[in-house]
Order: sequence, then structure tokens, then C-alpha cells
Amino acid sequence: MKDLLTLEAQVNRFNAQYAAALDERRFKDWPAFFTPDARYQVQGRENFDRGLPLCLIDLESQAMMQDRVYGITQTIYHAPYYTRHIIGTALVSEVTDSRCQAQANFAVFRTRPGASGGGVSEVYATGRYIDRFQFSASGSLLLTHRRCVLDSENILNSLIYPL
Amino acid sequence: MKDLLTLEAQVNRFNAQYAAALDERRFKDWPAFFTPDARYQVQGRENFDRGLPLCLIDLESQAMMQDRVYGITQTIYHAPYYTRHIIGTALVSEVTDSRCQAQANFAVFRTRPGASGGGVSEVYATGRYIDRFQFSASGSLLLTHRRCVLDSENILNSLIYPL
Amino acid sequence: MKDLLTLEAQVNRFNAQYAAALDERRFKDWPAFFTPDARYQVQGRENFDRGLPLCLIDLESQAMMQDRVYGITQTIYHAPYYTRHIIGTALVSEVTDSRCQAQANFAVFRTRPGASGGGVSEVYATGRYIDRFQFSASGSLLLTHRRCVLDSENILNSLIYPL
Repeated sequence: MKDLLTLEAQVNRFNAQYAAALDERRFKDWPAFFTPDARYQVQGRENFDRGLPLCLIDLESQAMMQDRVYGITQTIYHAPYYTRHIIGTALVSEVTDSRCQAQANFAVFRTRPGASGGGVSEVYATGRYIDRFQFSASGSLLLTHRRCVLDSENILNSLIYPL
Repeated sequence: MKDLLTLEAQVNRFNAQYAAALDERRFKDWPAFFTPDARYQVQGRENFDRGLPLCLIDLESQAMMQDRVYGITQTIYHAPYYTRHIIGTALVSEVTDSRCQAQANFAVFRTRPGASGGGVSEVYATGRYIDRFQFSASGSLLLTHRRCVLDSENILNSLIYPL
Repeated sequence: MKDLLTLEAQVNRFNAQYAAALDERRFKDWPAFFTPDARYQVQGRENFDRGLPLCLIDLESQAMMQDRVYGITQTIYHAPYYTRHIIGTALVSEVTDSRCQAQANFAVFRTRPGASGGGVSEVYATGRYIDRFQFSASGSLLLTHRRCVLDSENILNSLIYPL
């Protein structure tokens, strides 16, 4: 079983890579952070706390994530915006030889470029990731489940890109 | 004496656990991050920088913290809000066999749920923790003093929950 | 060659010290985070992404940084403000015996003290550091190049202090 602080450093690194992919708009890289049958959910805190199932986004496989990427890059008509993720230190638990759980606080900022957007950076969403990771044979991490539990009930404009 | 980077990883973990307890509204767990005779202070930067004693909150023992928790959960009438802490990397100094000092930047976001609150996440307070830690026999950390020095002079509405 | 996670912990520590110097207004300490011939740039994301050279700030040596510090502390007339940096986990790459590259997301918050400023903390700028580091003989880090790539196109009021 891995040393906990080392494993947390690995999860922090994973989260920084995940953030970099989204914030640099390398959306096609995003599904590769997950296993083929992984789940990705964005859920309001109110529903999460009450154990209610409704999510804003609920993708049940990597293929659905790829479809979402196709949507946000090719078909959805929306005002463009940049994101910037700041992710807190991950807390790892339930470590076995092949899996662990983790959670980390996040704040995502949004900047709408150009004259219409104003170009000012704003708080877009805050919340926490509640994650299940799987270790590959080489020891690297892949998400089997990422749940983004949002404090924010009211997302500025709309939620297009993954969190 | 402990390795500095390892100790900083431990403090980062401590701060993540501290943030999780507050952000998940497990307020009763909050005093347990401190020693029985610990001090918890929230102070404006202006007073801190000038060495002036006035604080917004100044609790002189774990018992006073428990009393504060009773207040915020049972007696104070206020509009509810969620918090989300994002805490930067801790800088540890003055390490001995039994103690160390640390500081870390923080940003706390606030979301007021429900129709009246609007549900948008906002910057609530920014500042830094200036901390003194004590190591327990098992090597775990406890705060003997946490000073939250606020940049923010004007807290949105009021300061109810600990930072 | 250094262990990657250890090196990332060192860069995180460096960034926390860098943030502390600026946020505590120890501006005279700021050039010492760089080598004598280092470069410091603040550039909009739009220009960075297109490979265009224009920067908001482009300092080509430590001496120019010292000159900038003289300007912001002695000559520029501006409304005072506090900054608070929250810097994400650094991602290190291209490690050799004497150098490495790194990047890290940042969010900088601003608080304008006093009656005219309102004292509320706001998002000031978000973006990422794209860095080149050099290892000293003792193994400590110095920047040879820090590029601050801003999401924000519209800085609140003006950009006085380094990011």
C-alpha cells in the first residue's frame, strides 16, 4: 500500500494536469483522465447532501464524455469563455493496492474575452471533487468516478465546459 | 527534526481537513483541530500590521470555540450560507522536536442558497493563516494558535462561521 | 536528476514564498526570486496563444525588476491595494541536472483598503505562470524566466504590483 502523503502528491499532480487540460482548452484530452466505464457527474450540493439523484451533468462512460467534447467544440452555440481552476490539496482515503478515494476543493474562475464579455475574471463555480481512482499497472492514476459537487446554485450564464 | 517538505505536506493535509470540516458544515469537529488551551483569532490586516490588539473574533480556549459552535448552530439567527476554502501551500518555519510555525494564504468563497440568496458564489474573505502547531506523541498536528489575518475589511453581511 | 514529486514540492514552496513576499508587500525581496539576467513578463492569453510578442509588462533583467520596485514604491501615484495570491500545484517538466520548466495556475485577489476602496476582496486576475527555473549549487531554485499569462483582459483599475 502506498504512502499516503506520496499518494496525495500524485493526486494533486493529477488534478493539476486535469485543470491544465481544461484551462488550455485541450478538451479532447479530457476523457483520457477517466477509465472507459467511468462516471462523471456535476451535481448541486443541495441534492448531494440529501442523497437525491438529480445531476446537472451525468455521463456514464468515456464514450459519453467524448460525445460531450464533440458537442462543446463542434455543435453548441455559446459565448466563448476561458476557465481557470484552482484546486486545493487532495485528501486521500480508502487506499487499497488498486484503488483509492479522494476529495479536493475547487474554485473555477471564468473570463469572457472580447468587447461583449468585458474581459474581467469572475468566480464561476466553487465546490469539491469527490473521486474514485484506479491505479494502472505502471502506478499512474485514472478516475473511475468524479463527482463535482457544486456550492453554486446559479451558474453564470450556462455550464458548457467540464469542471 | 522532521524533513521540511514532508512537514509542509502534513500541514497542507491538516489545512485540507480543516477546510473540509468547515465547508461540510461539521462545525462540531472544528475545535478538535486545536489543543485545549489554544487561541483562535480573526484579525484585520490593518491592525495586525500595526501590532494593534483588536480582533473581530478572539477565542482563548477550545471551550470558547465549543461555545462559538453552539452559538452558530443553535442560537444565532442569520441567513444561511455555504463556505468553500481554497488554501495555498503552507510555509513551515521554526521547527523543533515538538512544535513548528506555519503560514498559508487562503481565499474563502460564499454561496447563499435559495431564492433570496441568489445561489451565486462570491469571494467572501481572503487573507492568511499564521499558525503555531504542536506535534502529538503520534506525530499528528494540533493548532496551539491560529491567527486569520484578513485582507478584507468589509465582510459580506457578517462573519458567522469560523474561517 | 531529482525525483519529480519532490521537485514539484520545492516549486510549490518557492511559489508560496514568492506569493508571501508580494502579498506582505516586501517588494524589495521580489527581484531576488530571479537570476540577474532573468526575464519577467505579464502577457494576455490572447497574445500568448497566437505567439504574438506584445506584453503588458516585459522586464529583461533583475535590474529592470529593481527599477520597477522603485517605481511602485517611490514614484507611481495610485490608489493602494492589497493582493492575495492563491497558486495551484506546480507541474514540472523538462528536468535536467541544472534546470527545469514548470507551470502553475494562479488567482490573485485584490482588496482596496479604506473608505474609498470599500474593503471588499475581489478577483483581480487569473492565469498561469509558465516558468523556467535554474538550480543553484545548493539545490535551491531561481527563476530565469517567469511568464504570467493572464486570462483577464480587463484588469480592475491598473496593474501596479507584480503578479
